[in-house]
Amino acid sequence: MNKARSKDRGDEGEPDSGVSRPSDVLPGLDREQLRVLRQVGRQWGRVSPLLGVAHRALPVDPDLGAFPPAADIRPTRFGQLVHITPLGGHASAQAADVAGEIPGSRMGRIARRARRAMLGAPLKSTAVARESMRKLVALPVLSADALSSVAYGPEAMLGVLVLAGTAGLAYCLPIAAAIAFLMLAVGVSYRQTIRAYPHGGGSYIVAGDNLGLLPGLTAAGGLLIDYVLTVAVSIASGIAAITSAVPSLAPAAVPMGLAMIALLLVGNLRGIRQAGALFAAPTYAFILAMFALIISSLADATERGFQPAPTPHLNAAEGLGVLLVMRAFASGSTAMTGIEAISNAVPVFRPARWRNARTTLTWMIGLLIALFAGVVAIVHLSGVIPSSSETVLSQLAHLTFGSGAMYVFVQAATAAVLLLAANTAYNDFPRVLFLLARDDHAPHIFLRQGDRLAFSNGIALLSAAAALVYVVFDGNTNSLIPLYAVGVFLAFSLSQAGMVVHWRRVRTPHWRKSLAFNATGAVLSTLVLITAAITKFTAGAWVALVAIGLFFLLATRIRHHYQTVGTALRLHPDTVEAPDRTLAPAPAPPLTPPHPTAQPEARRTDRDAEEAEEEETPQAIHHLSVVALASLDLAGLRALAYAASLQQPTLALHISPSEEEAQRFRDYWTTWGDHVPLHVVLSPYRAITAPLIHYIEALHRQRPDLTITVILPEIVTQHLRHRLLHSKDATRLRHALRPLPKIVITSVPFHVP
Amino acid sequence: MNKARSKDRGDEGEPDSGVSRPSDVLPGLDREQLRVLRQVGRQWGRVSPLLGVAHRALPVDPDLGAFPPAADIRPTRFGQLVHITPLGGHASAQAADVAGEIPGSRMGRIARRARRAMLGAPLKSTAVARESMRKLVALPVLSADALSSVAYGPEAMLGVLVLAGTAGLAYCLPIAAAIAFLMLAVGVSYRQTIRAYPHGGGSYIVAGDNLGLLPGLTAAGGLLIDYVLTVAVSIASGIAAITSAVPSLAPAAVPMGLAMIALLLVGNLRGIRQAGALFAAPTYAFILAMFALIISSLADATERGFQPAPTPHLNAAEGLGVLLVMRAFASGSTAMTGIEAISNAVPVFRPARWRNARTTLTWMIGLLIALFAGVVAIVHLSGVIPSSSETVLSQLAHLTFGSGAMYVFVQAATAAVLLLAANTAYNDFPRVLFLLARDDHAPHIFLRQGDRLAFSNGIALLSAAAALVYVVFDGNTNSLIPLYAVGVFLAFSLSQAGMVVHWRRVRTPHWRKSLAFNATGAVLSTLVLITAAITKFTAGAWVALVAIGLFFLLATRIRHHYQTVGTALRLHPDTVEAPDRTLAPAPAPPLTPPHPTAQPEARRTDRDAEEAEEEETPQAIHHLSVVALASLDLAGLRALAYAASLQQPTLALHISPSEEEAQRFRDYWTTWGDHVPLHVVLSPYRAITAPLIHYIEALHRQRPDLTITVILPEIVTQHLRHRLLHSKDATRLRHALRPLPKIVITSVPFHVP
Repeated sequence: MNKARSKDRGDEGEPDSGVSRPSDVLPGLDREQLRVLRQVGRQWGRVSPLLGVAHRALPVDPDLGAFPPAADIRPTRFGQLVHITPLGGHASAQAADVAGEIPGSRMGRIARRARRAMLGAPLKSTAVARESMRKLVALPVLSADALSSVAYGPEAMLGVLVLAGTAGLAYCLPIAAAIAFLMLAVGVSYRQTIRAYPHGGGSYIVAGDNLGLLPGLTAAGGLLIDYVLTVAVSIASGIAAITSAVPSLAPAAVPMGLAMIALLLVGNLRGIRQAGALFAAPTYAFILAMFALIISSLADATERGFQPAPTPHLNAAEGLGVLLVMRAFASGSTAMTGIEAISNAVPVFRPARWRNARTTLTWMIGLLIALFAGVVAIVHLSGVIPSSSETVLSQLAHLTFGSGAMYVFVQAATAAVLLLAANTAYNDFPRVLFLLARDDHAPHIFLRQGDRLAFSNGIALLSAAAALVYVVFDGNTNSLIPLYAVGVFLAFSLSQAGMVVHWRRVRTPHWRKSLAFNATGAVLSTLVLITAAITKFTAGAWVALVAIGLFFLLATRIRHHYQTVGTALRLHPDTVEAPDRTLAPAPAPPLTPPHPTAQPEARRTDRDAEEAEEEETPQAIHHLSVVALASLDLAGLRALAYAASLQQPTLALHISPSEEEAQRFRDYWTTWGDHVPLHVVLSPYRAITAPLIHYIEALHRQRPDLTITVILPEIVTQHLRHRLLHSKDATRLRHALRPLPKIVITSVPFHVP
Repeated sequence: MNKARSKDRGDEGEPDSGVSRPSDVLPGLDREQLRVLRQVGRQWGRVSPLLGVAHRALPVDPDLGAFPPAADIRPTRFGQLVHITPLGGHASAQAADVAGEIPGSRMGRIARRARRAMLGAPLKSTAVARESMRKLVALPVLSADALSSVAYGPEAMLGVLVLAGTAGLAYCLPIAAAIAFLMLAVGVSYRQTIRAYPHGGGSYIVAGDNLGLLPGLTAAGGLLIDYVLTVAVSIASGIAAITSAVPSLAPAAVPMGLAMIALLLVGNLRGIRQAGALFAAPTYAFILAMFALIISSLADATERGFQPAPTPHLNAAEGLGVLLVMRAFASGSTAMTGIEAISNAVPVFRPARWRNARTTLTWMIGLLIALFAGVVAIVHLSGVIPSSSETVLSQLAHLTFGSGAMYVFVQAATAAVLLLAANTAYNDFPRVLFLLARDDHAPHIFLRQGDRLAFSNGIALLSAAAALVYVVFDGNTNSLIPLYAVGVFLAFSLSQAGMVVHWRRVRTPHWRKSLAFNATGAVLSTLVLITAAITKFTAGAWVALVAIGLFFLLATRIRHHYQTVGTALRLHPDTVEAPDRTLAPAPAPPLTPPHPTAQPEARRTDRDAEEAEEEETPQAIHHLSVVALASLDLAGLRALAYAASLQQPTLALHISPSEEEAQRFRDYWTTWGDHVPLHVVLSPYRAITAPLIHYIEALHRQRPDLTITVILPEIVTQHLRHRLLHSKDATRLRHALRPLPKIVITSVPFHVP
């Protein structure tokens, strides 16, 4: 199945761009299976006249349910926003009156309406608009994650250094310089990726393509954790920007954060596109605010002759050692998160895509280094130290601008860009899950696009995970940072190591230079990764490492299951190669008298069940209908009539709690005329399910060649609330019957008011 | 249906003894329905040779699943305990190897084993042992509830009086005298009930029989609330007896109470019978302890010349008014709860039942009045006042016996008898619910007896309700008392008022005397009821009143629904009186071209759906099978083969998200050979359920005479954990299809490893 899909994808080109295609959800057949299908069809052809299966003269005209596609994506004011065609208005007059609602309970209708109000009307598949962005739009949209890291990266670094007291803060500048160099190296490294993977080169794809399954999955695990933490950290940091400005909101920080996650959830389920102007604003505002802050602050410092303002004396909580410096370095490196966004999103650029993407990446790296260096410099000059009640940026803004409009602007822009950064993860997390699901490494539910073309399941999972992490760590940025660095740099390292292998393989022009850049990036990233894993192991990095390990295990198990199922579902050449077996009616075993102890022990094994279910042709099926009856009311009689009308051997079964009741039922049966053989099973323990299952199992053991159809009358109430008043026997029986081999379960609903 | 059942019950005698009979769960048919059944059968007889429905030559021998009843109730050491036959050992050799377990997931097996370990092996229906008790056993078992009330009744009364300070306590003796008189009057009144209702006369039955539906249901509501509060109050009071003796346990009072409720839940689900010796002990111990306490205390008082010991001076929190005295009276009256137990349980006595029951009642009333009066007297003499940390009984025992063995004995006996009293409610609450359910006033799930012959659902509901009340009122007896009195005296009043009507009607010898006694009881009970409702309205009585009102509304709605359903399920004489309609094949409407706007508007109404489903004979059914296919794999082909083998008109349906995928699917279909007509519905919104439902609805509208069988291939995984990895489309479709008229839903499970 998997192979088939890969092949199918190959035909359509752009194998890994993360856009959902029908073949992902409904995989096609490979050549081998098509051959088998043709052979099976030939067998049907030999028997269908006899069986009359075709019945081409249908009593209905099937051509009434066409839902004519009327794809019209009209341009709107925001060019990239997708036009919404409501479900109600899609159909021709023919279907219009039925399209509005699924018949159902009132609760269902209310739920549907609430959903519609919150998420909007469904969108057609054809409404997927391929966005293409100008560089000036792509820059802010794609770099929000990276640039916003400046809001927490330097602070995280300082937060570690102050543990060593005033002396520790002196290391601030050299560490920042090392991080800036790292940014440069990784940025240059990703420039190579853009050239090599013009269709978008996420870490999962690059590592998986070049290094193999294990590194690919590890990178994917790192990425998924990275995205969860991006949401949690960005929200935590954004809320900190708000509570710094309005300290009275501080106690409500966690609920506010959860509300923001809920907002992102609903917004992304609706399918917020990265809508140019709307999304560009916060990033430009943030860049503006930062530069204003840095320049004003430097101007102040010039007046003081660049003498650092005195910091309050701090007592050292820890000794100043190599480990502390490394820890500060690892914390500060979180300012680099999001740097890979542009290389993942090359297809959204206007042609020549890769060239535009590279230019934009260069700009982003430049801005990132400038902002990061600027912030560290003015922190150093102004003598600000991290505080638990106010962010460093807020302190800087207070020092420089007082509490006026400019201060508010800085804080608002910071909060907005952080929220936007969290939103980036909402685009990427479901896409990685989609790619994993396409390779059978994640549940296939992540392949499905919701009503609004969003990968709803992935979005919901991200929200749940981020909310959990956010609450467990109490919305505290500093507690989250240790987990963050590991996932990010794991993905960086693997992606760039993958690029090194890539260049060695393809050897396109200038490959040596590219390889050198990528190798530098890979080595440096790996160093940061090791640093982070060691120095922050007890502070939380172990959580991330364990999570990646669990993810790997889980993904492997999931793939194993899908492959087993795929094999089980494949049309088997065996059946076709042994035509005698399927064509000739199976010889009916002699009806042995009921001495079951004398019968061969035929405990069902899984292999039995599997083998037993290869009836691809109608004549391979030998029927027995069993009607399970509780009483001879209208519902029961209707089920009996249905069973009889199928004209297959039919047996009526009644489970009776006592001999007395059994006799009464037999009397009714005689009154009715005994048209169908009746068997009454006495269930002295009053159970319904177990005796019926055992009976059906025993029938199967007596004649394993029969396909047993269990027909269950079922009372369906109009209102959900009335369902509690009726027996759930039919549902319970259906659940218990499902695992039996060669079983078919038929519900005959009887509708009561 | 209801009428039929009443009649059926009437034939079997002892209409209201609360013993479950098969006819309750599986009601019989009345004469009218039997007549219709015979007529319907005659119609089948006319067509069954043509249809070949009988197929009496079954391919299997149906006689293999007999579960031979081997009812043996062997006498055990405790005569009344029921012998347990484990499920595993019940079956003959024939069925032994299949009886042990239902095939299912490992989780299911573990759950089943845990259940078995906790609740014991299932019991057969025939294991219902009709207990019959000697008077010396019946007295302690049936009077535990009433006598244990002495542990909280006097204390509740004093608790109100101390609000008026020392002056209030003076009213203690007159109020107690009034309560003792009330006990006598109500006791004598219930003696009359025993004579009139020798099969057991619960308030619900007496009030319902004589006063009508509204009073009957009101009494039932009062009783149900009474039983919930009996559990909560008895447990609260029992825990108070324990924490009085061991004050260090006080902080754990609420968890301890919940643990006791859990113990009662498990014990009663296992089916604790009122096992003579075992259950008689606590009551006799309590009687012994109380008399020892009263006599010793009176002896002490004799030495003091019956001078009341000085009470500490108390400040009055409230003025001493009529209202306060009435409130104290209503609180003290809770000492009467449980007085009705003997009249409900007449059938458990040995013959002559009613005479033995009356004698026992007289003894109980005597003991109750003696204990109540004795406790109030020694409280008065010893000057004890209620305290929040120690019960009055514990204070009295401390004063009289110090802290030695006798003190411990008093407290232990008190706690034990209170636990036993709570257990009484576990016998009665499910029985009342059973009677309500039999009359369609409660969900029929309360008719079912569990594995262990206990009414498991009623027991579970009582535990949940009692635990809720217990936790909400923080396990505090005094907060619970105001709710208690209303329910108890409502049931008392209605029951005795019912008896008054009864005597006026039957006019058996001495009816005038009996009527007078019952009238006195009714008037006094009503006075207490009104007193309690008024004086304790704001303290909690309103909760009880609102609950009774809600119960009444709910019960009426439930009965209405069951009657509607019963009518819908009855075999209709209409169908038989118009034989043409069912015998002649329905004329096939001409196949109109698909211009649905031109078709008559045929919005489905409930009546339509009902009328449409009266096919009691096979030839009234015209088939169309629709196979819903997602892909042409082994599961899909098997469903197709199954559908074709039924030899009915068959249509294959595929829901496709895009034209591209639809074309691919059509190509596969052609490759296969196009043996079955295929229709592809385009679903541009990617939904599966809605388009399929709309399509099926449209087919139904085109040909409302057809019974449409929707055949769904369904992948069944061996392990529960793998279920998440597969689409739930089949389940969703089944749920959405159920409400459609004239639908049949067939699952073809395909088992994968």
